[in-house]
Amino acid sequence: MADPTEGSFSEPETEIMRATYRALREHGYADLTIKRIAAEYGKSTAAVHYHYDTKDELLVAFLDYLLERFVDTIRDVETTDPHQRLDLLLDELIFAPEEHRDLAVAMLEMRAQAPYKGDFRERFRGNDEYVRYMIKAVINHGIDEGEFDDVDADHVTRGLMMIVDGARTRAVVLDEPGALETARQTAAEYVDAVLT
Amino acid sequence: MADPTEGSFSEPETEIMRATYRALREHGYADLTIKRIAAEYGKSTAAVHYHYDTKDELLVAFLDYLLERFVDTIRDVETTDPHQRLDLLLDELIFAPEEHRDLAVAMLEMRAQAPYKGDFRERFRGNDEYVRYMIKAVINHGIDEGEFDDVDADHVTRGLMMIVDGARTRAVVLDEPGALETARQTAAEYVDAVLT
Repeated sequence: MADPTEGSFSEPETEIMRATYRALREHGYADLTIKRIAAEYGKSTAAVHYHYDTKDELLVAFLDYLLERFVDTIRDVETTDPHQRLDLLLDELIFAPEEHRDLAVAMLEMRAQAPYKGDFRERFRGNDEYVRYMIKAVINHGIDEGEFDDVDADHVTRGLMMIVDGARTRAVVLDEPGALETARQTAAEYVDAVLT
Repeated sequence: MADPTEGSFSEPETEIMRATYRALREHGYADLTIKRIAAEYGKSTAAVHYHYDTKDELLVAFLDYLLERFVDTIRDVETTDPHQRLDLLLDELIFAPEEHRDLAVAMLEMRAQAPYKGDFRERFRGNDEYVRYMIKAVINHGIDEGEFDDVDADHVTRGLMMIVDGARTRAVVLDEPGALETARQTAAEYVDAVLT
């Protein structure tokens, strides 16, 4: 997978990604077209196609873009304390959908397409792998510092991702108030139970 | 919500539900039509429409049908030991997608439509409520018997549903081997940590 810390988008590409973000939030995944993205971009569809041949290619780039933004957010976190860093990672992973519900709705639609679109699935897998890599690094750091028990960091990370993905799905499907807070609390209980 | 223990489907309706099951597994949600359901049913589309006016109405009934089947499976469990019953409930909830991957794929597509289709969302909510009711009953039974700690059964149930729904989503989106086993183990760790 591409290293999301490189900042791989040119200026026009970043503009197209921002336009895609707005178009997805407004129209949802099913009704998204290059025409609608171009309208948000303020240029012609040809100007979009100059950078991305197809809608699917553009959307795969959009998944990279979201991961880069997530990585940027995490990098800005100043603390090096393992417990605090893990808390902040989980906050970011679980509460992000709350601030951008329209995007979370569109993302679940895209995720549901993964079995039909191999390039989506590969990108979801790559991004998941990267996020797990970040969580695992924090857990291993905590183990080295003696702050966490000597656990199987990979297994605990996968357990936490179950809770994160369950929260995201339930927040979109059931739209129940408090779902994300419950998930965050469950993640905290799981961390307390297995890491300390 | 309707009581799923009543067995509310007539014989032709049950046949149509079975036909829907086969058609969903074969064509997926996006390409499902009444015509394809009728073909599996072995009768005309009019014969289907006699029972269900629209495809969405039929699919809402299908969600009820799946819940009834789940409730039947659980009722057949003979043990009354709370820990064993909870284990079996979680086995059923987490491992079912493995045996019916095509159905799990179609279900995630339907779940992703919940924000756009109020009747889907209401049924997903109702079914979720019923499953939580069953889990809560087992936890409260275990508390009464002194087998579980005196916890907030509602909160623990919601935590377990995060893990269940995370497992279902990840199994479909990432299609990773071992995802369901990991989820089952996470659920067991969570149960051990908070209930005992």
